[in-house]
Amino acid sequence: MKRIRLKVAYDGTDFHGFQKLPELRTVEGVLEDALCELCREPVELIGASRTDSGVHSRGNVAVFDTESSIPPDRFCYALDQKLPPDLRVIASEACAPDWHPRKQKAIKTYEYSIYNGRIEDPLLRRYAWHCPYPLDTEAMREALLQLVGSHDFTAFSNPASQILQRGGSAERTICSAELMEEGGPAYGGGRGLIRLRIKGDGFLYHMVRIITGTVMETGTGAKAPEDIKDILNSKDRKKAGMTAPARGLCLMSIDYAAEDGT
Amino acid sequence: MKRIRLKVAYDGTDFHGFQKLPELRTVEGVLEDALCELCREPVELIGASRTDSGVHSRGNVAVFDTESSIPPDRFCYALDQKLPPDLRVIASEACAPDWHPRKQKAIKTYEYSIYNGRIEDPLLRRYAWHCPYPLDTEAMREALLQLVGSHDFTAFSNPASQILQRGGSAERTICSAELMEEGGPAYGGGRGLIRLRIKGDGFLYHMVRIITGTVMETGTGAKAPEDIKDILNSKDRKKAGMTAPARGLCLMSIDYAAEDGT
Repeated sequence: MKRIRLKVAYDGTDFHGFQKLPELRTVEGVLEDALCELCREPVELIGASRTDSGVHSRGNVAVFDTESSIPPDRFCYALDQKLPPDLRVIASEACAPDWHPRKQKAIKTYEYSIYNGRIEDPLLRRYAWHCPYPLDTEAMREALLQLVGSHDFTAFSNPASQILQRGGSAERTICSAELMEEGGPAYGGGRGLIRLRIKGDGFLYHMVRIITGTVMETGTGAKAPEDIKDILNSKDRKKAGMTAPARGLCLMSIDYAAEDGT
Repeated sequence: MKRIRLKVAYDGTDFHGFQKLPELRTVEGVLEDALCELCREPVELIGASRTDSGVHSRGNVAVFDTESSIPPDRFCYALDQKLPPDLRVIASEACAPDWHPRKQKAIKTYEYSIYNGRIEDPLLRRYAWHCPYPLDTEAMREALLQLVGSHDFTAFSNPASQILQRGGSAERTICSAELMEEGGPAYGGGRGLIRLRIKGDGFLYHMVRIITGTVMETGTGAKAPEDIKDILNSKDRKKAGMTAPARGLCLMSIDYAAEDGT
């Protein structure tokens, strides 16, 4: 028996999230079915991040145990023909038999894409949130900087969060929060694609999407960048902005510290 | 009666090309239906570029005549609710009543996207051609440079081209042909997205896709950049490379010289 670690990429549009649910198309469900067929044995996946319905990934991580004789680094190729086009295993390798993707220190990188043009771009509609109003990206950058560091992120998380409901800590550390602009004529002149790239040691339920919704309000002028500190201190979800839609969010990578892969 | 000029963007995946065809979903057909409904009169579109099935656009141009009282610059907003999500009119304005989008000098800009990773990226599958082999992008840049200038592009066009079959000239001018790389960790490390951006005064049937297929072969080493001149001189389609798939191609813009818009 060996444990295999997979890097999993998907277009979340047509999945009901990562985690297996009866009767619904989920990443975990579809991937487990393909692995069972490939390995000819029952397979149970353990995923690192249970991304929401509609959220995309270029770097989610999952492990499973198998008796299969397929070489660990070949699983990604062997799965290619068994997976639908909106789901791919982009890398595979052996890891220690007790390595658990949610019990290791890791830095997660998320990107949130906003299309800032007067009219929606049909080529970005599945992967970006459309904002037709002019955005002050300098104010948004300032707002993002207020979030960097260790804070109690209760105000920036959905109160339905299981961790919060069980009385767990809402303290998380954001290592960096950048804004990148891709403008120019490709997007009809001037305005274009805005990406928020946020790295942290862990994220509460809806945290990146609520951060995005709040930072967006500093871009339209509805909030000031300085308000972010007050919102953090309030620990009140109602003080923060709206939850940005799932389609703009992509889990880019999970970087584990001091890997012990076999 | 006034003539309105539209800038048209679409995700070509689910369209059978631009030009109207009986029983099939086309950009022209869907857009004309929406305009008829909006203007409450029969509308006939004249398109600048009859893009192929599966080809995308961020800047195709079309005109139509109308008695409607909608202000010319508001058509793009008025159409927003009447169009499906994969089709948008991103700008609208009045133009001279005799202005014809195919009878003006213009520079067209196309981009062809290639995803160069070992395993397909599910988020790019609709908009890029997947090449799993390492590509020598310097050789590809050299090959592209050989194409810049005025040449007879018979070897780089589909022999079914109506222009060629009618005995028309195959001489076209490519103003610039660049290769841009977006690599990095976002695409699983090292390799990533390669874009070919080609500007010219006109393109023959399948010309950008055959250029891409040929330039790709200089990237894998199957052809040398110097071969491009011989292929041009041969005027023989069989000497050039394969026709790259439609999904990687996007018409980015059409820039008309010395506009006479009213």
